[in-house]
Amino acid sequence: MRDETPNSWEARADAASFYGFTDLPSVRDRGTVVLTHGEGPYVFDVHGRRYLDANSGLWNMVAGFDHPGLAAAAKAQYDRFPGYHAFFGRMSDQTVMLSEKLIEVSPFEGGKVFYTNSGSEANDTMVKMLWFLAQSEGQPERRKILTRKNAYHGVTAVSASMTGKPYNSVFGLPLDGFIHLTCPHYWREGRPSESEAAFTARMGIELEETIAREGADTIAGFFAEPVMGAGGVIPPSAGYFQTVVPILKKYGIPLISDEVICGFGRTGHRWGCEAYEFMPDAIISSKNLTCGYFPMGAVILGPELTDRLQAASDAIEEFPHGFTASGHPVGCAVALKAIEVLLEGTTGAPPLIENVNALTPAFEAGLARLANHPHIGEARGKGLMGALEAVKDKSNKTPFDSHLSVSERIANTCTDHGLICRPLGQAVVLCPAFIMTEAEIAEMFEKLETALNAVFDELT
Amino acid sequence: MRDETPNSWEARADAASFYGFTDLPSVRDRGTVVLTHGEGPYVFDVHGRRYLDANSGLWNMVAGFDHPGLAAAAKAQYDRFPGYHAFFGRMSDQTVMLSEKLIEVSPFEGGKVFYTNSGSEANDTMVKMLWFLAQSEGQPERRKILTRKNAYHGVTAVSASMTGKPYNSVFGLPLDGFIHLTCPHYWREGRPSESEAAFTARMGIELEETIAREGADTIAGFFAEPVMGAGGVIPPSAGYFQTVVPILKKYGIPLISDEVICGFGRTGHRWGCEAYEFMPDAIISSKNLTCGYFPMGAVILGPELTDRLQAASDAIEEFPHGFTASGHPVGCAVALKAIEVLLEGTTGAPPLIENVNALTPAFEAGLARLANHPHIGEARGKGLMGALEAVKDKSNKTPFDSHLSVSERIANTCTDHGLICRPLGQAVVLCPAFIMTEAEIAEMFEKLETALNAVFDELT
Repeated sequence: MRDETPNSWEARADAASFYGFTDLPSVRDRGTVVLTHGEGPYVFDVHGRRYLDANSGLWNMVAGFDHPGLAAAAKAQYDRFPGYHAFFGRMSDQTVMLSEKLIEVSPFEGGKVFYTNSGSEANDTMVKMLWFLAQSEGQPERRKILTRKNAYHGVTAVSASMTGKPYNSVFGLPLDGFIHLTCPHYWREGRPSESEAAFTARMGIELEETIAREGADTIAGFFAEPVMGAGGVIPPSAGYFQTVVPILKKYGIPLISDEVICGFGRTGHRWGCEAYEFMPDAIISSKNLTCGYFPMGAVILGPELTDRLQAASDAIEEFPHGFTASGHPVGCAVALKAIEVLLEGTTGAPPLIENVNALTPAFEAGLARLANHPHIGEARGKGLMGALEAVKDKSNKTPFDSHLSVSERIANTCTDHGLICRPLGQAVVLCPAFIMTEAEIAEMFEKLETALNAVFDELT
Repeated sequence: MRDETPNSWEARADAASFYGFTDLPSVRDRGTVVLTHGEGPYVFDVHGRRYLDANSGLWNMVAGFDHPGLAAAAKAQYDRFPGYHAFFGRMSDQTVMLSEKLIEVSPFEGGKVFYTNSGSEANDTMVKMLWFLAQSEGQPERRKILTRKNAYHGVTAVSASMTGKPYNSVFGLPLDGFIHLTCPHYWREGRPSESEAAFTARMGIELEETIAREGADTIAGFFAEPVMGAGGVIPPSAGYFQTVVPILKKYGIPLISDEVICGFGRTGHRWGCEAYEFMPDAIISSKNLTCGYFPMGAVILGPELTDRLQAASDAIEEFPHGFTASGHPVGCAVALKAIEVLLEGTTGAPPLIENVNALTPAFEAGLARLANHPHIGEARGKGLMGALEAVKDKSNKTPFDSHLSVSERIANTCTDHGLICRPLGQAVVLCPAFIMTEAEIAEMFEKLETALNAVFDELT
């Protein structure tokens, strides 16, 4: 596979780029795939090879790689006002309009928006906001953050500390005071003969016991993705949020819904919290917020947190926080267009969220079909996000030996067949673009099935 | 000043945007300035008012607010490939090319680049890289980070912990293990009758004593801006880096040059470390990297850190870190153009760094003229960054009472006269765009002088 020509794109990529979240043995063997352009949900590499991207970039390029409306919105704003900040009592008109629109499409009645450049920065900002409240409201010891194992909240030192993945130990993380509860994944974490209802009840008991052990007045907030994304597409067990939300309310612990992946239609609903029928105190947004056409994150504060944070800021005459590109006018113009494309639609173009719901039955059927494979232990998902969990032995859910790198093999074999999908643990994750057709969904599952059969034949 | 019409832009801004780094009493009295577009170094608000922006946005819009080459580069890339990530052994061709170019224009012989969306994320990433090395190389206790008081390194919880500003106490920051040395500002920190050489020597002694007290093997790195930016434009005392660098070398402590502000020409040199003739182990870049036309940061690793980090990553087959928009193709295309515009020039257009050096004498002369004012205690700067420090009593450097908000008053009065400049502590900071003309530099100082006279007359 690897192009060994001197000065090949692969060699040039290796020479000067430090790779993150990349399986280095795969790159060494196969070479980096250097991409030049895209068409709809497909991308093309420097050798002219075409790939159907079942990742939609990184969950985010949901309107495809050549959406004319989004590109036009960016280009028009580059001609108008190509950059400004939102500090010192100044901001662009686009920033004002996007904040209004975000509150309008949020589940909140009122509230305010704070901009960042990424979901990591938005989660990190939210933690700082909670610590600021704690200091301001005379409870400086209220600093601990509750999240769940397998949660993914980002990569800054604090958002990585919230992320419940073992790889963060290589940085000496998590920092103190970041507590990871059990992942509410019934298939993997349920005990033998434990019903799903009993499992969910146990998640609630664990939360309440943790609060009691740590002290309710030491806990600043609870963060949760409605469906865990980079943990491997893990929907919560039935009734999970209905169990934990009353406990959090009882102890006055803010609930933050990390909607970086779920927000703006991925689950078939505007927000993941709407899909699971709970009301958070704030929402963390990124990714689909701009359909991947601009780096942007947002903290969307509900009315109660807005009032408390505004009072705390007024008391010291400033909220001393913000990023240079917070509320960048081009990002805001792109996000305004993305909200239209995803949620509102334009004349002749229905909102893409409708296509998510139209495609979901075919997507679920494709997952269910592959779940019949003797080495697929679980198919799971919500809306247009799904995962297939590879197992050595389906009857007792035994995973393959980790040195076999089963999901990397599947993903690499898919790449050879012109399909990009994502290995996560021993699962393969699918999160197709919202613009896909049924034919493209079918192509995705056919290529994946071919790869699964090839790899499982090789391994068994 | 404030437009009190119902549904005015000012009211709309207040309603849904949570303000950061904004003096809230000023906004309450005057209303947020909502901007629509720019021309060269000028910006225009919704009421058609024009302002000369002596901040160049936030140090970053150095090529002005309507640079045709930068906008064209962004627009062309939106037509070609409007978004992708750099994970899983894939990245865009633009990303490959930018990494090569950044190493070429860096002071390093070789090295590698890691992308982020901001300077905050780049500093946070660098800390994680140093912690990763410590864990990997069998020194897990090597975690402390040394910076200086008045340093500004960002706003994530970790980069805010590196920032040596008192306002971070409202978040309960810094976190443990972030140590702030004395600010090497001879005018303010020098002792009575202490020479500048003796002051610099004292900075070295403090560093060495701190290393001895904390234990050299507990210190992961030392971060420094060549000229402190958001601390109030503070050049180091003479010989500062020549004093501290050998001490850091002696104890094996990596030196990271935070060039978010100084990089790409602000000081009249490509890099601040070149202006002050020292060689760091890595460079943190952002802002001018894209001239503010796209959110982007970069960690530029020198060859030694590259080798050590590559070995540590190879050992675990992955560096488990990265942001969704790391190496975004539009950002990379913009940065490639920005480097051309700033450092290399095109036919008929010399590189803007030449204009920085051409304007610097007029800029320095303007600062020196205003420094004659009886209430300006110090004028300081380097290249096209400068500050004027207001004092109540010049003879003994006594500041004004802080409740007088002297620098906010000056900045607000400037705004009334169509000039944007930045209050920082009791200083007023100037960091004009690199495209300015001598006439615009003259306009900037005339407006500032008018405002200074008006405010000092009012206060005395």
